[in-house]
Amino acid sequence: MRVGVVGAGYWGPNLARNFAVNPDWELAVICDLDAERAQQVADRVGGVPISTSLDEVLADPSIDAVAVATPARTHHPIVMAALAAGKHVTVEKPLADEGSRGAEMVETARANGLVLMADHTYCYTPAVLKIRELIAAGELGDILFVDSVRINLGLIQPDVDVFWDLAPHDLSIIDFVLPGGLDAATVSAHGADPLNTGKSCVGYLTMPLTGGAIAHIHVNWLSPTKIRQMVIGGTKRTLVWDDLNPQQRLSVYDRGVDLAEQFKATTSDARAATISYRLGDTWSPALPEKEALSNMTAEFASAIREKRQARTDGASGLRVLSILEAARGSLAIAGAPYPVHNAHEMALS
Amino acid sequence: MRVGVVGAGYWGPNLARNFAVNPDWELAVICDLDAERAQQVADRVGGVPISTSLDEVLADPSIDAVAVATPARTHHPIVMAALAAGKHVTVEKPLADEGSRGAEMVETARANGLVLMADHTYCYTPAVLKIRELIAAGELGDILFVDSVRINLGLIQPDVDVFWDLAPHDLSIIDFVLPGGLDAATVSAHGADPLNTGKSCVGYLTMPLTGGAIAHIHVNWLSPTKIRQMVIGGTKRTLVWDDLNPQQRLSVYDRGVDLAEQFKATTSDARAATISYRLGDTWSPALPEKEALSNMTAEFASAIREKRQARTDGASGLRVLSILEAARGSLAIAGAPYPVHNAHEMALS
Amino acid sequence: MRVGVVGAGYWGPNLARNFAVNPDWELAVICDLDAERAQQVADRVGGVPISTSLDEVLADPSIDAVAVATPARTHHPIVMAALAAGKHVTVEKPLADEGSRGAEMVETARANGLVLMADHTYCYTPAVLKIRELIAAGELGDILFVDSVRINLGLIQPDVDVFWDLAPHDLSIIDFVLPGGLDAATVSAHGADPLNTGKSCVGYLTMPLTGGAIAHIHVNWLSPTKIRQMVIGGTKRTLVWDDLNPQQRLSVYDRGVDLAEQFKATTSDARAATISYRLGDTWSPALPEKEALSNMTAEFASAIREKRQARTDGASGLRVLSILEAARGSLAIAGAPYPVHNAHEMALS
Amino acid sequence: MRVGVVGAGYWGPNLARNFAVNPDWELAVICDLDAERAQQVADRVGGVPISTSLDEVLADPSIDAVAVATPARTHHPIVMAALAAGKHVTVEKPLADEGSRGAEMVETARANGLVLMADHTYCYTPAVLKIRELIAAGELGDILFVDSVRINLGLIQPDVDVFWDLAPHDLSIIDFVLPGGLDAATVSAHGADPLNTGKSCVGYLTMPLTGGAIAHIHVNWLSPTKIRQMVIGGTKRTLVWDDLNPQQRLSVYDRGVDLAEQFKATTSDARAATISYRLGDTWSPALPEKEALSNMTAEFASAIREKRQARTDGASGLRVLSILEAARGSLAIAGAPYPVHNAHEMALS
Repeated sequence: MRVGVVGAGYWGPNLARNFAVNPDWELAVICDLDAERAQQVADRVGGVPISTSLDEVLADPSIDAVAVATPARTHHPIVMAALAAGKHVTVEKPLADEGSRGAEMVETARANGLVLMADHTYCYTPAVLKIRELIAAGELGDILFVDSVRINLGLIQPDVDVFWDLAPHDLSIIDFVLPGGLDAATVSAHGADPLNTGKSCVGYLTMPLTGGAIAHIHVNWLSPTKIRQMVIGGTKRTLVWDDLNPQQRLSVYDRGVDLAEQFKATTSDARAATISYRLGDTWSPALPEKEALSNMTAEFASAIREKRQARTDGASGLRVLSILEAARGSLAIAGAPYPVHNAHEMALS
Repeated sequence: MRVGVVGAGYWGPNLARNFAVNPDWELAVICDLDAERAQQVADRVGGVPISTSLDEVLADPSIDAVAVATPARTHHPIVMAALAAGKHVTVEKPLADEGSRGAEMVETARANGLVLMADHTYCYTPAVLKIRELIAAGELGDILFVDSVRINLGLIQPDVDVFWDLAPHDLSIIDFVLPGGLDAATVSAHGADPLNTGKSCVGYLTMPLTGGAIAHIHVNWLSPTKIRQMVIGGTKRTLVWDDLNPQQRLSVYDRGVDLAEQFKATTSDARAATISYRLGDTWSPALPEKEALSNMTAEFASAIREKRQARTDGASGLRVLSILEAARGSLAIAGAPYPVHNAHEMALS
Repeated sequence: MRVGVVGAGYWGPNLARNFAVNPDWELAVICDLDAERAQQVADRVGGVPISTSLDEVLADPSIDAVAVATPARTHHPIVMAALAAGKHVTVEKPLADEGSRGAEMVETARANGLVLMADHTYCYTPAVLKIRELIAAGELGDILFVDSVRINLGLIQPDVDVFWDLAPHDLSIIDFVLPGGLDAATVSAHGADPLNTGKSCVGYLTMPLTGGAIAHIHVNWLSPTKIRQMVIGGTKRTLVWDDLNPQQRLSVYDRGVDLAEQFKATTSDARAATISYRLGDTWSPALPEKEALSNMTAEFASAIREKRQARTDGASGLRVLSILEAARGSLAIAGAPYPVHNAHEMALS
Repeated sequence: MRVGVVGAGYWGPNLARNFAVNPDWELAVICDLDAERAQQVADRVGGVPISTSLDEVLADPSIDAVAVATPARTHHPIVMAALAAGKHVTVEKPLADEGSRGAEMVETARANGLVLMADHTYCYTPAVLKIRELIAAGELGDILFVDSVRINLGLIQPDVDVFWDLAPHDLSIIDFVLPGGLDAATVSAHGADPLNTGKSCVGYLTMPLTGGAIAHIHVNWLSPTKIRQMVIGGTKRTLVWDDLNPQQRLSVYDRGVDLAEQFKATTSDARAATISYRLGDTWSPALPEKEALSNMTAEFASAIREKRQARTDGASGLRVLSILEAARGSLAIAGAPYPVHNAHEMALS
């Protein structure tokens, strides 16, 4: 299958490099309005053709798919055009800049029988694939809480706040590893702009999950230390993912609170007495060394070939987008909970 | 000056041990309803008298002060009785179980010209004293955000949730180190009870501060790993306090975002271009080895002698209490912001 | 059984406290030349008798055993007198200040049918007990190397160098966990005294072990950072003990080098090709919270009652001592290997 | 100036990439016996010419210099040929496989007025450059000890042992940062080959330095954990370099032992009383983000242009080599100290 990379900015070169070496794919073209930038990317992967015209790329019947790595506000027109031209599409996060546009993209892909994949790259890292596998196998039991921290001294973005810049990573990962996806009904978002930059530079997202569980995300552009840590607590075990510790990225703790059976039948005062603690072993699974984008490009090919949804399909991209939109709504009402519109509602809106 | 310790449970023995060795104080009596428990504490400090009667202790004119380490719901009656008997008081956190009661205690102490001190022990650790000193000296510049994490596998308490159990530490520390104290006008509290214990076991508190800053606290009884970390971001420098790293508890990062002067005069799009980063040195101040309670008992004596408010006075205890109450209010409305009543309002309520 | 603690300096109070609470023992007396010091220790454990006369203590027929925590140069006369008086003995490290004296102590205890125990306290920590258990169960396979680091800003001792101050810990632990004990035939010791204090402040010990394995110890009084880490490499797995990481003291790595079977039959050049790597999981066993001295006092009682050698018997103390002596010999010849005299040779010397 | 890269194996591509982008240099040719391998390297830097003939490269008068990244045993013939052809040379570590050959290379370069540079890449990292600068400025005072650990699960090399594989890094760094270079008169080397591979897989090097100081290096192919740490203790401050901690690579501790003046005049027993401890602040200097090889290629150009020795000149390469040779000698006598021949002696041998 032949693929074109659309957008030769920050992420495009990584896509190009991975498509170039993947035996499932032939890298057909690098497309960017800026010919020089496109040429630089093309040179580094052994000299594929370039184009400055998206129309030209989409008109080429030999091209099966496009990978879109352009600014978020251009995702909708580019992807809609690609889908209209019969191309399969993988697109950077966030899926679109508005939920209704994202919903239209998902709907169109489905109607046209094309794969629309969200390039949630983190989901294809060995660590996240292992987390998903462990949860699916019941190793953690029922999920009690998810706490994610992604903080660093970060470039203050001209067009997006810290939520739209960083939280899509956490949201897409949580959506990927939870058995039913990230099904939050409401979101509370608290942001701060203490430097008066016109947008949140520090942000917190809180999402109640079904069954009393909770997910919480802390994103921050102003932290001098870099932390990328996610804790996923379960009834059986708790997992800690420390992405900056290459020697022990994942730790599974066989520690936690055990509730005796009678607990559920008694009053809450009596309950305390029936709680006990497990202080068991810790286990850190070995992870293969595999680049995430390599897994992503392979999954894109498999989904097309097997005529199925990708593991990170347009719908997952839409769930992430819908939460970001709800967060925007919550911010406008001082952090009060704001309902998350689901894809169907968005399609109707 | 002679002091009696009231309550011989978890904390009382530590108070007794510190008062016993402090040259400012003579430890006069250990008071507890349980004579055996009181005797055990008395034995370990060289055999001071015990009493099972608070009235007896308060009636003793040779006793100048009492240190109250009983359950929170008993603070109000015990402290009010002590103040009525003309004793100076230091009392465990939280000040009381309800804001209005706390306000009455503060008001009474003031009216009677007595010292009412909140035993916010953490504030007297070398680390927190140094943080306060650094901020007061302007080393961090204006405060932009405070992010505090206090998580651990914790005993689920029979009578309080995770907010009332753990957050008083963070709140009292933040109140102590911020130049104007913790002046939050509203609080948002998000809690989760995924084990169905009848109370929050995972909790998040968010408090907008003046000038666009934000304070956030994460408390959690279900985490298998123990984290006690506070990040305080300022316009000049950012401080990280990692209380579990004895080799480097405090780190002051000369890193951050610099805004060029014209920034404030331009539109927000142009602003991005005028932001630059400082990536300067990190500095970790040496801290003296001194037990916090030793500092606390010395401060209690000094405040009495100098007829001044203690550094952690009743008013600070009341601010902490008022935020916990507001958090309770926020929890009841799904995490929407809830106003913090100040001490004056409480006194009137 | 009744025990007397001889020596009320740094370590004696810990012994007293543990014997006092152990149901196997009745703490009979605290003995020290300095009556005031003895009294302080006695007070803290509920007021046992004191004595300033060792003879008096040894003459008391109701006393079954003594625990000796006096300076190393006094171990020999005190222990010999105790053994002559028919008392069982546990004695601080090092067993004696000279190997021949240690050998005489071991020999006398054996002849008199008494327990002579080396108080190698570290061996009774939950971590070291677990290491011994794992190695004994074959979890690590054959031992390939042991590397121990014990460095810290330490008080420069008036009478001993850094080897005699710190290395007994590492040596006794290695002796305890290796299936056959620490059977080094030679020792190389490299020391440095860069501050011209008259004794080594930085030291390295190297001991070839049977089968081509090696043990190495780094002790250092001049390091500003504190490290207490031991790595034990085996043919099957490798264990890392980081004593300053309470959240993960032991880590067992299922990583290593695998040699194909034909390896042993081929030339060394061909061998390289047949080596492969295992990059398996890491596992951190949970450890009980138990004070080491509590385990030690229990073992002392059991050994006496069961009329057997203690797990850390006099012979183990003698092995440690013989290596320290050999190290002294190696230092005198600029670090060249120096033979380790075994206990039998010592007894004859 | 035009440079050719000789050797397109592991390191050559990095050299090529850095010479290609350095404005001081024009990358003239990639030379390797394996044309395909050379072409791959050439392609990745924009298509420079390749050659399979060293003679051809050396015969090209337009080429000013060569960078040699071939196996160690080929360094001598290639570098001698290059020097004979009037080319400046930078060569991978170790300089040669025997000291006498290295000495000949250094001598020839000097005689021909050419730059012979040892590519001790680590010396050009921002961390090592900063260490050198701090020591030169007297920030650490006199050096008391250097302890370096470089351990990891490593490929067992077919032709070299762990000393020749890893220790050149540590030796070249120590040589670079110590004001007088690494002037060890003797070396003790202890190695172990517990897997019976025919060469040391675990190794320790000890080098007494002038003034009672000591340097020690631990290299290990069998460690499941990766440690790259160097501690440099001084009379004023101590520096810790943890190369695997990107957030705080260098820490300078203002902690240590202070000796009162009278110390030196008194007996060693009295001395103990006059020692005191400094427990001052810790400071972590910010480091620029700069690739080491970029600094190296710039230094190579500057040295040629300014007709001076490079900062890591042939003589430094020879000092490293002479220590490796002495280590080989020490290994043959069970770790006893072995004299280090200096360059002059080597030239005569």
